[in-house]
Amino acid sequence: MTKTIYIAGMGLIGASLGLGIKRDHPDYQILGYNRSQNSLDIALERGCIDRGTTDFASFAPLADVIILAVPIKQTIAFIEALSQLDLKNGVIITDVGSTKSAIVEAGETALAGKPVSFIGGHPMAGSHKTGAVSADVNLFENAYYIFTPTQLSDQETVAELKGLLTGLHARYIEVDPTEHDLVTGQISHFPHILASGLMEQAGAFAQDHPLTRHFAAGGFRDMTRIAESEPGMWTSIVMTNKAAVRERLVDFKHRLDEMIAKIDAEDEDGVWDFFDYGRKTRQQMEIHKRGGVDSFFDLFVDVPDEADVILRILELLRGTSLVNIRINEENREDISGILQISFKHKADQERSAKIIQEHTAYPVYLD
Amino acid sequence: MTKTIYIAGMGLIGASLGLGIKRDHPDYQILGYNRSQNSLDIALERGCIDRGTTDFASFAPLADVIILAVPIKQTIAFIEALSQLDLKNGVIITDVGSTKSAIVEAGETALAGKPVSFIGGHPMAGSHKTGAVSADVNLFENAYYIFTPTQLSDQETVAELKGLLTGLHARYIEVDPTEHDLVTGQISHFPHILASGLMEQAGAFAQDHPLTRHFAAGGFRDMTRIAESEPGMWTSIVMTNKAAVRERLVDFKHRLDEMIAKIDAEDEDGVWDFFDYGRKTRQQMEIHKRGGVDSFFDLFVDVPDEADVILRILELLRGTSLVNIRINEENREDISGILQISFKHKADQERSAKIIQEHTAYPVYLD
Repeated sequence: MTKTIYIAGMGLIGASLGLGIKRDHPDYQILGYNRSQNSLDIALERGCIDRGTTDFASFAPLADVIILAVPIKQTIAFIEALSQLDLKNGVIITDVGSTKSAIVEAGETALAGKPVSFIGGHPMAGSHKTGAVSADVNLFENAYYIFTPTQLSDQETVAELKGLLTGLHARYIEVDPTEHDLVTGQISHFPHILASGLMEQAGAFAQDHPLTRHFAAGGFRDMTRIAESEPGMWTSIVMTNKAAVRERLVDFKHRLDEMIAKIDAEDEDGVWDFFDYGRKTRQQMEIHKRGGVDSFFDLFVDVPDEADVILRILELLRGTSLVNIRINEENREDISGILQISFKHKADQERSAKIIQEHTAYPVYLD
Repeated sequence: MTKTIYIAGMGLIGASLGLGIKRDHPDYQILGYNRSQNSLDIALERGCIDRGTTDFASFAPLADVIILAVPIKQTIAFIEALSQLDLKNGVIITDVGSTKSAIVEAGETALAGKPVSFIGGHPMAGSHKTGAVSADVNLFENAYYIFTPTQLSDQETVAELKGLLTGLHARYIEVDPTEHDLVTGQISHFPHILASGLMEQAGAFAQDHPLTRHFAAGGFRDMTRIAESEPGMWTSIVMTNKAAVRERLVDFKHRLDEMIAKIDAEDEDGVWDFFDYGRKTRQQMEIHKRGGVDSFFDLFVDVPDEADVILRILELLRGTSLVNIRINEENREDISGILQISFKHKADQERSAKIIQEHTAYPVYLD
């Protein structure tokens, strides 16, 4: 039976969701909303949606499933708007916001007593590219797609959403909205504050110590990279996850205090333990395997420092779809001088390893 | 006139210094010390040194210039040892340590009154590769090589060292040792503590929130990468730069307090300003141009997401020496979908830009 899906927001996420849904459900009708007609035109042309509107309310009553793929504040505003509209009986509403508690609470409050189901969602995918023009049917492949059901009766709705989204080839997982916000607070929101805080500190320091600008090197660059993200999005994230972020801030201050105490006590062993613990903890974390957002399959080739060595490898892999390739600057002591190639598919990774082993003498490692 | 140069430590830095000195001074005799004979054998085979010893004291009296390229603690121990030896009149002693005040103080104290000159040095170069086996005559090219003279009479010695090291093609700069330690404390040592602290915190958090391990994504990975560095080296760095690091720790705690206050006051504008300031400050820093350690010339090509697009570019650039190539994951809003190619030489960067512009329709940007 065909269904009508309404995706509000034709950014990278919303437009890619349209492509992903169409892959397994070519008969479904996909409607799209965007504030600007230009993005709608691109989404229509790319086949992400079948019809578009710049008036959010107009298509909502037609939908069996409504996906809010807009910034957090607008997601909450649209939930309020939906509560005032005459929606189809049993419509499923979901979103793609980076924080979940505030949105889920808004959904459960505004839509209470209505014949609709609201389930929070968070596909942990992204790209350096933005907008419908970059829509990618593979954007979510192997990435975590989190649902945050809160009631037993939500199970059926989650199952329906998973069925709708099979074409994404994501890894679906269900998490309590509070737990979602605690974990993302630790691994994403709080680190963002650290990065911006370090940048703020270095900026102030550079006023009196101008060499700061010149000597900033690899480690500093990596640590502050995310400080260049769009401030509006991160402000909304922090403001909708205040308690979790605040708790991590306070906890981190205690850790800095402990380091200060070690320095004051000239506790060299304690400082060594601190660095060693950080190192061991990182080595054990999944970031060395497939990460949450970057769920790739990596291949490492120990190449000599010679001209055209990357070209030679790529010639061997001609036609293979790869996500990225780079000389690995990570200071891994177990392996040195390494070319890292990332693939979306395990089969590509394994076939590529075989090809390189057959045609070169370079050591090859799989992650 | 030929000279005898004694390099103590045949790690990546010491061995590469040997190659760099030989480039412009093929007639100089280069002696090498290393604790292990194996590294000496590699350094001899690679042509980094002419003769090697595992007994530090044995070659010291032969040298016109002594370069200590060993860990900080051993550098200080070797300075003490040198003060007990019968060195050549007017010998120049320098080092390559990551902190300078403690080493310079050790040098000036231990060697006071002797007919030797001690000048602290810090070549800001490194690699993911280690050991004499990775020695690279181009390791220091375009990198900052810092000298920390403290007296007017040091100028002549610095000039002699620069003359010795012309083959490195580094960018020489003179900085007061205290200022050196303040600046590197801000952009290197303190960020290292932040990275390890974040890793420590996330490790503890993961005990109660196991999803932490799975959801750790790109930003977190970048921010904690340096937490995997060798603990011993970073312990020595912190212990020889205590005051500067401690001051940054205390300063950063105040910044975290300010963020907590903004959250408590629900000061959304203040949070936005915080993120926006970090973003603007980073955009203005030299890290977008040539950085301190990674002094490369970058070329950006806006490539479509198609198979073999990197291969096509590399075929065009066949024979050109490049440092790295990667799909840029930085979230730069001004440019999207970008292939970043790093070159050691500006001429290679410019010629490559021209070739790509002539043979493709992809937009090309120079950094």
